[in-house]
Amino acid sequence: MTLVQIAIALGLLAIVYGFFTSRQVLGADPGNAKMQEIAAAIQEGAQAYLNRQYTTIGIVGVVVAVLVGWFLGPISAIGFLIGAILSGVAGYIGMNISVRANVRTAQAASKGLQEGLTLAFRAGAITGMLVAGLALLAIAVFYWVLTDQLGNPINDPNNRVVVDGLVALAFGASLISIFARLGGGIFTKAADVGADLVGKVEAGIPEDDPRNPAVIADNVGDNVGDCAGMAADLFETYVVTVGATMVLTALLMSNVPQLEGLMALPLLIGGACIVTSIIGTYFVRLGGGKNVMGAMYKGFLVSAVLAIPAIWYATDVALGGIATEVTISSSGTSFTGMDLFWCSLLGLVITGLIIWITEYYTGTNYRPVKSIAKASETGHGTNVIQGLAISLEATALPTLVIVAGIIIAYQLAGLIGIAYAATAMLALAGMVVALDAYGPVTDNAGGIAEMAGLDDSVREKTDLLDAVGNTTKAVTKGYAIASAGLAALVLFAAYTTDLNAFADKLGLETVDGKAAVSFSLENPYVIVGLLLGALLPYLFGAMGMTAVGRAAGDVVKDVRDQFANDPGIMAGTSRPNYARTVDLVTKAAIKEMIIPSLLPVLAPVVVYFVITAVSPNGAADGFAALGALLLGVIISGIFVALSMTAGGGAWDNAKKYIEDGHHGGKGSEAHKAAVTGDTVGDPYKDTAGPAVNPMIKITNIVALLLLAALAGHGM
Amino acid sequence: MTLVQIAIALGLLAIVYGFFTSRQVLGADPGNAKMQEIAAAIQEGAQAYLNRQYTTIGIVGVVVAVLVGWFLGPISAIGFLIGAILSGVAGYIGMNISVRANVRTAQAASKGLQEGLTLAFRAGAITGMLVAGLALLAIAVFYWVLTDQLGNPINDPNNRVVVDGLVALAFGASLISIFARLGGGIFTKAADVGADLVGKVEAGIPEDDPRNPAVIADNVGDNVGDCAGMAADLFETYVVTVGATMVLTALLMSNVPQLEGLMALPLLIGGACIVTSIIGTYFVRLGGGKNVMGAMYKGFLVSAVLAIPAIWYATDVALGGIATEVTISSSGTSFTGMDLFWCSLLGLVITGLIIWITEYYTGTNYRPVKSIAKASETGHGTNVIQGLAISLEATALPTLVIVAGIIIAYQLAGLIGIAYAATAMLALAGMVVALDAYGPVTDNAGGIAEMAGLDDSVREKTDLLDAVGNTTKAVTKGYAIASAGLAALVLFAAYTTDLNAFADKLGLETVDGKAAVSFSLENPYVIVGLLLGALLPYLFGAMGMTAVGRAAGDVVKDVRDQFANDPGIMAGTSRPNYARTVDLVTKAAIKEMIIPSLLPVLAPVVVYFVITAVSPNGAADGFAALGALLLGVIISGIFVALSMTAGGGAWDNAKKYIEDGHHGGKGSEAHKAAVTGDTVGDPYKDTAGPAVNPMIKITNIVALLLLAALAGHGM
Repeated sequence: MTLVQIAIALGLLAIVYGFFTSRQVLGADPGNAKMQEIAAAIQEGAQAYLNRQYTTIGIVGVVVAVLVGWFLGPISAIGFLIGAILSGVAGYIGMNISVRANVRTAQAASKGLQEGLTLAFRAGAITGMLVAGLALLAIAVFYWVLTDQLGNPINDPNNRVVVDGLVALAFGASLISIFARLGGGIFTKAADVGADLVGKVEAGIPEDDPRNPAVIADNVGDNVGDCAGMAADLFETYVVTVGATMVLTALLMSNVPQLEGLMALPLLIGGACIVTSIIGTYFVRLGGGKNVMGAMYKGFLVSAVLAIPAIWYATDVALGGIATEVTISSSGTSFTGMDLFWCSLLGLVITGLIIWITEYYTGTNYRPVKSIAKASETGHGTNVIQGLAISLEATALPTLVIVAGIIIAYQLAGLIGIAYAATAMLALAGMVVALDAYGPVTDNAGGIAEMAGLDDSVREKTDLLDAVGNTTKAVTKGYAIASAGLAALVLFAAYTTDLNAFADKLGLETVDGKAAVSFSLENPYVIVGLLLGALLPYLFGAMGMTAVGRAAGDVVKDVRDQFANDPGIMAGTSRPNYARTVDLVTKAAIKEMIIPSLLPVLAPVVVYFVITAVSPNGAADGFAALGALLLGVIISGIFVALSMTAGGGAWDNAKKYIEDGHHGGKGSEAHKAAVTGDTVGDPYKDTAGPAVNPMIKITNIVALLLLAALAGHGM
Repeated sequence: MTLVQIAIALGLLAIVYGFFTSRQVLGADPGNAKMQEIAAAIQEGAQAYLNRQYTTIGIVGVVVAVLVGWFLGPISAIGFLIGAILSGVAGYIGMNISVRANVRTAQAASKGLQEGLTLAFRAGAITGMLVAGLALLAIAVFYWVLTDQLGNPINDPNNRVVVDGLVALAFGASLISIFARLGGGIFTKAADVGADLVGKVEAGIPEDDPRNPAVIADNVGDNVGDCAGMAADLFETYVVTVGATMVLTALLMSNVPQLEGLMALPLLIGGACIVTSIIGTYFVRLGGGKNVMGAMYKGFLVSAVLAIPAIWYATDVALGGIATEVTISSSGTSFTGMDLFWCSLLGLVITGLIIWITEYYTGTNYRPVKSIAKASETGHGTNVIQGLAISLEATALPTLVIVAGIIIAYQLAGLIGIAYAATAMLALAGMVVALDAYGPVTDNAGGIAEMAGLDDSVREKTDLLDAVGNTTKAVTKGYAIASAGLAALVLFAAYTTDLNAFADKLGLETVDGKAAVSFSLENPYVIVGLLLGALLPYLFGAMGMTAVGRAAGDVVKDVRDQFANDPGIMAGTSRPNYARTVDLVTKAAIKEMIIPSLLPVLAPVVVYFVITAVSPNGAADGFAALGALLLGVIISGIFVALSMTAGGGAWDNAKKYIEDGHHGGKGSEAHKAAVTGDTVGDPYKDTAGPAVNPMIKITNIVALLLLAALAGHGM
């Protein structure tokens, strides 16, 4: 069995885990008829939305696949389609489990907290393992077929099938994921904000009240946004990170004797961590108390600690001894297997630190959330001011962690070191996604308990389970964006390496065998590129926020209309038309997701051609500006995404903190102000912020593809 | 008369204009005794605040002056002190005129709109001309003494007295200005937000009601923040921009025969535009209607159009013929006087476009403000969401304008072209500051009219005058940040040029006579520097926002306490203790301004030494990371500042738009939501946002000084 085949086997293990665990989950008691009826409505809405979303994305996907095939050949087109389809599949299956687990979690919670936790967490774990497993399989199988089966070489500069194929695969995953993240994000927050505005604020009925026509849409949103959108996003992050590491390895180290092992190592690390993640899931147990977060962290910690020897062993095997020294002759840098191991360990440490920092900024026990809650006492305005201040501040520590990570990894093993740190971060994705996908299940479970009129004690338990969901959701986003920053740097390195390799074909002059493209900050076109790149996340964020506001306004009008036309709804005698609201949000979300998603696809192309046209140096400055655009997107994107996701989480939990009885509790003026903050934070943390993550990477991947197309691969 | 002496004479003309116009303003009728009593209270509070602020800044200033003297010699220390003191003087005099013109404007408005406009605008014009005149005089006289009187050469690489002196002068101006902008910004918004929260929201009394103990503090804030702080800021922007242009000229063009004329040209352009600005002030007339904004623009347009032949003539004189070709032998680039003229014209066009874009994003007639007003109908949350969306979006067009400006100017005349575009932008500062400084005068006039119980018709007129103030204030900030972006690029160019010139003294290796410092984006320490630089505006913004929130909370407590202890205040029978609130805000603002202001001073030093210590390449990477830090601050700072200032202005005018009778008008639910948005926008647009402008430049200047100190100048 080759190393790649081992990785494939470990990937399959994740699928097997998913299959058996889903049988356990689906075999659980789905509760009474009323509960099942509500769950069916949510299920139906989610299904309808995803069908329509993926139909729309499918049309875009086919067009792009044809373009990829035209410019880069059929294998790249196939890679693109694999990435695209599996990204969709990951989201689809995750959502399907989630909408079935919600009602069963509500039922299980009526027996006890541990029972509810087990069921909801298992549902999350299925999504988590499917995301990690499918992502690993996508790359490993595709790579295995291209090399072992079709016999394409890795280190022949004139045969770029493998590298281009991997980049196209990543592009497919990213493109679908930005649509899913943004579409799902607009859906979930339009429904959430709309339902809150018209329900809580205007009609004065509580959250999840069945009289609110938008209540099913709100619950559907949790599944299509927080579950399906997130799963597609993490699938993309995984594929891009591991893929970028392999691409960079192929480009930089084509001349080292250990090339084959080095190509397989990222896959092996991914496979090894799937095993440790599966083991970790069995350690998520309360152990007597009510510390749900503690139970989660126990599982994560087990996965991470076991990953250390697993990665050591994988490295040892792949390089034929951990002490093996790899010397890149083109650059003269060298590193040992041990250096790569340290870089991977660094990735695990970064993951731990990011989780810790995110918890500090979004948990109810610490200064940031408490300061927002306190500021709510003096009104809506001061709540929002303090929330914005926290969201700005929350970028500082993660940035310092990322900076330290870059410096240490680079000193250990150069650019490859950064790539391994990012790969190790993503290797734990199965466990991290499990923690996150748990959130929408418990959120829905609470909603179903409320709507089905279950005993208050059930709602109390689902609330306990759900409170943790806010933090784990924020944690995943921080983790995704931090790893995206590192992965994007790897993509940028691939871009510059490729530029040098294809200088001749691109018609660029060369100096000492390198393309005469000045990436120096002294080149004004670099500054222009940095500015334009930095603008993209802002513009993208503006579009996302506006879309939520507009769609939420439509929801408000629809609900008002339903209330006005049928007074029986508020009286509780007639059933609201839930499907109409779901349908309305569906259409709005799909319409609104298109243009912002195309922004990162088109911007690199436009910037390259415009700068090439206007600069006296032509393409040399076009490529310089394009490279700078990539870095500009990364640098500005990290800050925009971190501030939005952390700020949104903090606002949400500040509201929860007040609802727990602080500063006057539910119904107080402080609570009203906190609800405003929570509403503001919604599109911040669930629409605009997380979608910046795939956006950063699409920009980088499109640049790589543009470069390949201009160099005339596959033609 | 030499060219520099002509510039000095034109600078003195501005002072003469200020002197005579202030006699006109002070000679106007100061109204009845009640009005004078209120005005005296504001005057007293503003005076007390500025005295304490400048005492505190003075201590910091003396310490820094000693450090500058120690590392860079006595002349640099003197330059620093001149910049620092005159920056303070500009703010001080502006505030003094403003607090005397407010009551006279209220009185004049009782006669007619034109009378009120004339008085308020003249008061603004005094501040404007003093800012431009003092800034021009500071540089011109200092330069004249150093060269003509003390005989220091400009183009001797071993005698850096002139260059270091100019940089130190700019540092003095910037350092004082960041304190003044931030201290004044915290004061004005803490008082404003605090007064609104406790007055409008809690006690239900209107704005500017004399029963509110914070009302005088609020009016004081307009003067110390929007007038004195803004004046210091624009003084700094002027000095840094013109100074940086001269420094870059001295560094890049030491070998061209036209050096002397080129050094004088920025001063001449500044002087010429003072004349056109003074002429422009006489064109600010209503001409029958009520279009106050139109009257303002008429004045601006006259100044800008007249500036075109003036700059042409100045360039012709300075270069001995506009067609003179200047060739920089070190880089081989060449440009003609005509190219510099086109770059200057470009600066004027950029100014016009920025004004137009800012008006679009903050004026009540366009989509952005209307969309926020409309979103207010569905509540506080949607108002804030839409406002944030607009603030993100508002960065796009200015960025495109800046990018186009960089490309065109660079193609015309390289880095010097960018410097001339920035210089021409700043040359109109006298007129732009006049439009802005008019704002606090009319704002106060309205307050005084209200508190003194003048006829409603007077308040109507001051409201008409004041509405324009919101837009002109936003315009100035957009203008300042756009020019700061260009000026900072010039400073960055000076940094890299200096690095090459002093490579030997800094112990750096050289390649082809240039320092072997890699500013390439492929160098990870460059990425580290960019990330850390991008972080600074976020951290700075967080600190500013938190400070306002905290200080406003103190105001709320103080006012509640006054109401509780003396029920006569609300009944209107006893006078609140205004001075106590003023004193409290004064202390809070001064305490809060220190740490954020030191952030940009210390960050470059820390980053240089830490990276030098950890990188295997030592100082080469230290300087690379430091350079990248400078660009990171510029790139991220432009977006943070643009989004905050435009968003804040849009929120403010959305409230005004609703108050004008749209979406339910005053007192409606939409209005309440709009008040929340306005409160959120306050620290955005008046504290954190504008202070980013001096912050960007301090970081760059400190880097230049650090480099000079490390190279051992003056020792």
